[in-house]
Amino acid sequence: VSDKRLAAVAPSGMSPSGGAPNLPDHSQRESAGEDWRNAFSATSFDQFAAVAVDKIGELLRRQAVEGVTLEDPAALMAEARALMTTNEPGASLESGLDTERFARIVDLYFRTGIKVGSTGYMARQFSRVIPAAAVFDMVTAIAPQPATFYEAGQLANVADKIICQEFARRISWNHETCDMITTSGASLANLTAIVAARNDRLSGSWAAGAASTARGIPTIAVGEDAHYSVSRVPGIIGIGQDNILKLPLNGRRQICALSAAAAIEAARAKGRDVFCIVASAGSTSVGAIDPLEELAEIAQAAGIWLHVDAAHSGAFLLSDKVRPRLRGIERADSFCVDAHKMLFVPSLCTLLFYRDGAKARGAFSQQASDFASNPASYVFDDREDAMSRFESGGKNFECTKRPAILNLWLVWALFGVDVIAQKIEYLVDLTWEAYRYLSLLPDFAVIHEPDSNILCFEHRPHGLPDGRVSALQRALWDRLRTEGKFFVSKVDIDGRTVLRAVFMNHEIDMGHVKALVAEIRHAAGEIG
Amino acid sequence: VSDKRLAAVAPSGMSPSGGAPNLPDHSQRESAGEDWRNAFSATSFDQFAAVAVDKIGELLRRQAVEGVTLEDPAALMAEARALMTTNEPGASLESGLDTERFARIVDLYFRTGIKVGSTGYMARQFSRVIPAAAVFDMVTAIAPQPATFYEAGQLANVADKIICQEFARRISWNHETCDMITTSGASLANLTAIVAARNDRLSGSWAAGAASTARGIPTIAVGEDAHYSVSRVPGIIGIGQDNILKLPLNGRRQICALSAAAAIEAARAKGRDVFCIVASAGSTSVGAIDPLEELAEIAQAAGIWLHVDAAHSGAFLLSDKVRPRLRGIERADSFCVDAHKMLFVPSLCTLLFYRDGAKARGAFSQQASDFASNPASYVFDDREDAMSRFESGGKNFECTKRPAILNLWLVWALFGVDVIAQKIEYLVDLTWEAYRYLSLLPDFAVIHEPDSNILCFEHRPHGLPDGRVSALQRALWDRLRTEGKFFVSKVDIDGRTVLRAVFMNHEIDMGHVKALVAEIRHAAGEIG
Repeated sequence: VSDKRLAAVAPSGMSPSGGAPNLPDHSQRESAGEDWRNAFSATSFDQFAAVAVDKIGELLRRQAVEGVTLEDPAALMAEARALMTTNEPGASLESGLDTERFARIVDLYFRTGIKVGSTGYMARQFSRVIPAAAVFDMVTAIAPQPATFYEAGQLANVADKIICQEFARRISWNHETCDMITTSGASLANLTAIVAARNDRLSGSWAAGAASTARGIPTIAVGEDAHYSVSRVPGIIGIGQDNILKLPLNGRRQICALSAAAAIEAARAKGRDVFCIVASAGSTSVGAIDPLEELAEIAQAAGIWLHVDAAHSGAFLLSDKVRPRLRGIERADSFCVDAHKMLFVPSLCTLLFYRDGAKARGAFSQQASDFASNPASYVFDDREDAMSRFESGGKNFECTKRPAILNLWLVWALFGVDVIAQKIEYLVDLTWEAYRYLSLLPDFAVIHEPDSNILCFEHRPHGLPDGRVSALQRALWDRLRTEGKFFVSKVDIDGRTVLRAVFMNHEIDMGHVKALVAEIRHAAGEIG
Repeated sequence: VSDKRLAAVAPSGMSPSGGAPNLPDHSQRESAGEDWRNAFSATSFDQFAAVAVDKIGELLRRQAVEGVTLEDPAALMAEARALMTTNEPGASLESGLDTERFARIVDLYFRTGIKVGSTGYMARQFSRVIPAAAVFDMVTAIAPQPATFYEAGQLANVADKIICQEFARRISWNHETCDMITTSGASLANLTAIVAARNDRLSGSWAAGAASTARGIPTIAVGEDAHYSVSRVPGIIGIGQDNILKLPLNGRRQICALSAAAAIEAARAKGRDVFCIVASAGSTSVGAIDPLEELAEIAQAAGIWLHVDAAHSGAFLLSDKVRPRLRGIERADSFCVDAHKMLFVPSLCTLLFYRDGAKARGAFSQQASDFASNPASYVFDDREDAMSRFESGGKNFECTKRPAILNLWLVWALFGVDVIAQKIEYLVDLTWEAYRYLSLLPDFAVIHEPDSNILCFEHRPHGLPDGRVSALQRALWDRLRTEGKFFVSKVDIDGRTVLRAVFMNHEIDMGHVKALVAEIRHAAGEIG
């Protein structure tokens, strides 16, 4: 169990001015009671990394078309418990580093996970990530750059600015006046933007609370298909779930702009202060992209903040070909994009953009002088200098955060953003092709024209009564998930349960779509 | 640039029932226009992983005592820009995978980061992580188990339960009735717990908003040293920053229980409904642990929810030796622990515990039937079954989250938790020894008895007027940070600026503390 780090070493870089301190006597540490230090050693890194690199290489070369293996939780828990070392405290690590146990844990992890690398996986918005980014995640894990403060995360803060500039250019925003922060998930980005909207439009709500204003009861307008992370924000931020205005959808399950304008006007007439509209691009259920241009028009005319939850399809901004689908997003006050969805980097990495960068500081406005002992003074220095202008501390919900933006910057730097754009275009084209294919089948029905790479549909075998269609989709979903090679999801739309395929894997092609159709027909036959 | 994944392969696992679909013709993809696929290839993983493993191995064996190198942001940005590929879209990847560029990016990342592995790094609560956990972060990055839902993150949800049981046993909680969720940072855990408290104690606030109740103006009591992530929660959740009751501290900078009781009583007499007390264990500034037993007594008597922000020192629960410092935490309604601080796993991994597990669902109470099209139906199935009992979806703020708990479970499984406990004990002992040592030096003053592994102090050279002490500490901090081998932080306490050392690295010993003292004396001499 000897380790170079445990050997006696003078602090070699020590300045002569540092005097002659008592040098640490690391050699004493090789006694039995110091075995715990091996868990932190460089040797342990080498050994476990070698195992992981092998196992991941095998996984990435696996070609099976497979669904998920759902395990009984109690049995899985027993198996996990059995994998835990039974070494008594103090006796641990005597027998060295247990790479065999580590290998078994990695195997168990792969076995119990969703098979995002399989061409059978079409269930949700998860993709295998770009391998270079996953590797870099290990780099940032071992050597943290907590990215909220420039001092602690210099490269991460610089990368924020570069990525902001790149997006800004594509929507003709001025990168000097807009702003972008990275945060831990779209749920948090949506909350942050809506709190910024509340603080900006309901003056006094940060200090005094979110009660009624002179203009009426604070109200947030969201589409009926808004993601649950959006629809529960009013409850969290003190507006109240009763004060959500639900905007009706059109046949493509986008917010209907005409009805939205009428609904907002009617709400105002009844004493509601609609201060924020949240649009989707695209929605989680079907990938619908709301009419952003028209909603921006309505919002601007009424002095309402427009936020776009573009967690999924905001990535389209990086492709010249599909960017036009987001027309109008440049008029939003804020929007967010999950880089861990359609930019194919590890989660969580969400980009939150503000058209007017000055508003970014309004979400969590904070005065250091609020507190006698100024607990934040260890991070917020009074001096506004070149470095603090680069950092996101005052604008971020998090204090510690991963330098997740670096995964995206790395991909951009290594390959050029075109690799992402081309994958997006491939998936969007594939979804459209699948839509056309299913439309023509007599025993399938598509629910919507796809705006993104999500497609909802039903299997309707000849002669199946309308009243049994939803039950069949549910049964199909269950059967495919547990027994099939393919793994799709289901979603309830206007009281109907339909099947939902999300195309996130660029190794899927129409051959797999046709195989899925065959498997669904076969399963329906067995369900009877 | 050929790659096994790009070769023509039949979907080998395909069920016979799947019929004979048109097999994908991958061979076409080797044309020039398909080069982008190489960015996603297994080969790219092999090549980049080899570089990263080498670079990390070198980093972990580095022995320098070093501070941080602060770079000019504009110059760093130019350097980062210069590292980005200039390949034109379409031409990218023609020359193969650029491992040399990757190596330079890793070098730049290490150069610009904080040197948490150096024995000179004493600035903040960041530690080098246990290498096995960093390696596992790459595993979970490449093959996501989004851990909010059992279906998607089976092992992660099981690990949540195991870790919950282990903590519960140590504070005599019933693991059948308590609950624990993992979330992305203590800021989010504190918000979640306080929203749960608000919804539980201020009935109707989730639905109708956080306005006044029959019992008065909703008010949250926090210590004057509470972390800024706590002190801004009232502003975020609609209570209002004006409605914070600041509880006074004693000489050790803990909440003074006696004064707290009086302050709360006085606030209630003035029409305030104090529904939540947030205590710290330990505080960010000095690591103070509030008197939890006494505060629990006060809270219980008054029907107030007690939440403990134990982000830093909650880890003490895992050591028999230092656990008694948290006496009373078992009476709190909720508390959180950052595993990415004193449990030495990669960020973000925060554990949020509820004594009464039923309250965990109250933070973001949600009815799927709220929405006509039920957008959440793709995750929240109506059937409450064995699997859904294991999952945290309804209790978590996040929808997608990393299976970060697995890093902690992995360490526990591989080594036994004793490796963490022994490191904690070493750091706490070291801090106490440093405290005693500095106390005896004529030209140093310690600010507090350390409850944790954080120590604040001043250098007071003989003859320095009182009025110039703070200015000297600030100058010392600046000089050490930019020129020194050691890197400490500063904090403002009651209007004084003092130096702050956080001992997170178990390779630091008293030899380094003495060298720091020598460097400070030398720097003070040069400042003059």
